[in-house]
Amino acid sequence: MKNKAIIGRDLDFAQWYTDVVRGARLAAYSNVKGCIIMEPNGYAIWEEVQNKLGGILKATGHQNVAMPLLIPENLMNKEKELVKGFAPEVAWVTIGGQTELKERLCIRPTSETLFSDYYSQAVQTHKDLPLKYNQWCSVMRWEKETRPFLRSREFFWQEGHTVHASAAEAEKETYDIIHIYKSFFEDVLAIPVLWGRKTESEKFAGAEYTLTIEALMYNGVSLQSGTSHYFGQRFSEAYNIRFLNINHEMEYAYQTSWGMSNRVIGAIIMVHGDDNGLVLPPYIAPIKAVIVGIGDDKAVENKMVEINNLLNDAGITCYIDRAEKSAGYKFAQSEVNGIPLRIEIGLRDLKKNKITISRRDTREKIQVDKDIDLIAYIKNLQKDIHQNLYQKAKARMEQLTFTAENMSDVEKIMNKQAGFIKGDWCGKYECEDAMKTIGGLKSRCILENTSPITGKCVACGAEAKYAVVWGIQY
Amino acid sequence: MKNKAIIGRDLDFAQWYTDVVRGARLAAYSNVKGCIIMEPNGYAIWEEVQNKLGGILKATGHQNVAMPLLIPENLMNKEKELVKGFAPEVAWVTIGGQTELKERLCIRPTSETLFSDYYSQAVQTHKDLPLKYNQWCSVMRWEKETRPFLRSREFFWQEGHTVHASAAEAEKETYDIIHIYKSFFEDVLAIPVLWGRKTESEKFAGAEYTLTIEALMYNGVSLQSGTSHYFGQRFSEAYNIRFLNINHEMEYAYQTSWGMSNRVIGAIIMVHGDDNGLVLPPYIAPIKAVIVGIGDDKAVENKMVEINNLLNDAGITCYIDRAEKSAGYKFAQSEVNGIPLRIEIGLRDLKKNKITISRRDTREKIQVDKDIDLIAYIKNLQKDIHQNLYQKAKARMEQLTFTAENMSDVEKIMNKQAGFIKGDWCGKYECEDAMKTIGGLKSRCILENTSPITGKCVACGAEAKYAVVWGIQY
Repeated sequence: MKNKAIIGRDLDFAQWYTDVVRGARLAAYSNVKGCIIMEPNGYAIWEEVQNKLGGILKATGHQNVAMPLLIPENLMNKEKELVKGFAPEVAWVTIGGQTELKERLCIRPTSETLFSDYYSQAVQTHKDLPLKYNQWCSVMRWEKETRPFLRSREFFWQEGHTVHASAAEAEKETYDIIHIYKSFFEDVLAIPVLWGRKTESEKFAGAEYTLTIEALMYNGVSLQSGTSHYFGQRFSEAYNIRFLNINHEMEYAYQTSWGMSNRVIGAIIMVHGDDNGLVLPPYIAPIKAVIVGIGDDKAVENKMVEINNLLNDAGITCYIDRAEKSAGYKFAQSEVNGIPLRIEIGLRDLKKNKITISRRDTREKIQVDKDIDLIAYIKNLQKDIHQNLYQKAKARMEQLTFTAENMSDVEKIMNKQAGFIKGDWCGKYECEDAMKTIGGLKSRCILENTSPITGKCVACGAEAKYAVVWGIQY
Repeated sequence: MKNKAIIGRDLDFAQWYTDVVRGARLAAYSNVKGCIIMEPNGYAIWEEVQNKLGGILKATGHQNVAMPLLIPENLMNKEKELVKGFAPEVAWVTIGGQTELKERLCIRPTSETLFSDYYSQAVQTHKDLPLKYNQWCSVMRWEKETRPFLRSREFFWQEGHTVHASAAEAEKETYDIIHIYKSFFEDVLAIPVLWGRKTESEKFAGAEYTLTIEALMYNGVSLQSGTSHYFGQRFSEAYNIRFLNINHEMEYAYQTSWGMSNRVIGAIIMVHGDDNGLVLPPYIAPIKAVIVGIGDDKAVENKMVEINNLLNDAGITCYIDRAEKSAGYKFAQSEVNGIPLRIEIGLRDLKKNKITISRRDTREKIQVDKDIDLIAYIKNLQKDIHQNLYQKAKARMEQLTFTAENMSDVEKIMNKQAGFIKGDWCGKYECEDAMKTIGGLKSRCILENTSPITGKCVACGAEAKYAVVWGIQY
């Protein structure tokens, strides 16, 4: 039953990933170095992310806007840490029309500068606050190595930028967002995550601190999947965002920013996919079910049309696969494409008053009465598939989560299998740096509200301050 | 009752436009020359365009994708007419990261090159056809003079790019799209349009022909509002898009492209707006109604919440204006913002079992029974407002549509009032050029299936081939 266009996931994970991306026609390589083309199947997933995550963001009082694509160099240079972090990897426009520009402009790698510049005009008193803006756009970072959805020069994301009248409110926003991200991953994408705080060396350039959600791929590699930054007054001082506070004093405002990108599509592939291709969790799948007819018969045709109308009218997006191909081919293609459910309608079944429903996650075929309450049945099935995918991913994450007391433990683990490695940390940069010598391990996050396990730093043995999760990353 | 923040529309139309853009907080000027910021109120309209027009495009079999932002110079150079048309006005990236690029890349001014390059890989046989792709994105053209929503260096649009196995099918697509655009303008935006074919000198660089919809603003200036291009095999020859046809021969494919941009927001402002601000047609308004309470009373509060829930649950998006401002201020602000309906709830009314509904279009106040079937009532009202706005705009367009037999007629008309000028044309470029000497008149379109009026060219008096509409443009 193995799909021949897709290499075994355990045989060559990197090739398997590429095979799934191409087989499910999620993305194509372009002739623009480091940039991919999101094909209809891939872009449709991104649209669902925009709908679902975007819906949550709107419901929590965030408003969408559009800032310019380009940032003048002098505007970029105002916040020193941000420049240091991003200037080495931006693309510069130096010619506009036919003429050399007096000041070069970079394509946004992220838009703190533009939002801050805008807020410096828009914010005058505490009555103007908070402003909670977000934009869906693409950004550009001149990466050397690229992989579809995981790392590319141009990538798509949402970036939220908020400004508040108090530190407490801005910090609450920073945490609220990381919990929104966590729940989006778990409740919509069926992907369990860890969350916590980035170390000083891993935080966002210019932030006071960065919160992160971290997911574990099937092969044990970590994926930073969403980050939320608290800026305090750093940007407001650099960009002069001041407001008249309730005590009638001018005060610098408090800011946050946060983003989640189309690398979530990479996470879906690498957490749920299998040897037969993509497996889309039901709440993010753009197409919830495909209907395949077996044999050319009026009764089959009628039943297909009836079910197609019934489900689409109920908001369960589906379609009838009418390609001039065999049913077997269509079965295989629906599995490569990761469509959660396949409804198979054949004359033999119909004569027994049955239709067959195939689950993509378990590949189980279920015969149901053809006059069943299909909408209720499918909604239940979706809940079940979501749960199953989540539990499977959680079990895998737990299986690949290890605890290390010292460097020898870390080496032993890494020689066998990559994963999340829990190990206490004293807080010194040298110890964090020492971990990198073992297969490029980096701190994923400091777990919040979690006591150190052994109380001793995994690298130096000195007293530990933090419970940290380490891992290798995409 | 005149809003003081907004100058009279008949007094200074250009300033009035700016006042409405700023007063309704649709867009702000940025510190990036020629680029605007779409603020929440403006971006929300653009999202509605994406929903409504995007929904129609999906329902007619178009699929969304995302192509790269950047185009390598050699790829841009393959279709000679396109290069000639766009190369003078693009922005060039010459530095990526820290290093000078071997080949410079332009920020897409339009994406025929990228789609064609992709199609050259994706299309092999007639079974792969048609491919009907679309993307929502921003593009960049290095304009010198800019005006919010009408002309800016960066603007937002959708660009559709399709590839077909026959000329007839591609031509049908070209026409189908212009009719979709027309109906979107008329049935959703309540803006009447003319449609027809661009002259050779006004068509898209690289197209066989271009179809256009043209709207007339309140001040008589024309706005090219959506275009659809038939390419024949021009791009497929330049980019080598060939397919095995049903006769087993290799054949160059047939293509179209078409686009509508966020200048539709400019059209909405300039067609429907009045001295009190923006007037949003009900089917595109992001907020359908605002609820304002008069006086601080429990009964008022309860009724507001009840109506707010009732309407939102029915998909009629509304909110309660809870700003710490007077009711009068809120009334004025809702008019500046162009919200189609305002529901005013006061104790005096409630005691008489009444609530008041204010229409933005006519500014009429209607007292209705508080226990009326509000959802049905509002849906009817929306239909009525849409009709009224459309009829008013149509009457204005007709009032400003003139017929000219010769150049003396044209001058007389233009000395009095800009508008659409119907005038026959012989088809010679010199005559089209001569029209420009009169206030910059350009051909808007050749009316299809329409016979010349006098049969004589408005410029040279020779035999006319076409019925043409002329106008000055944004």
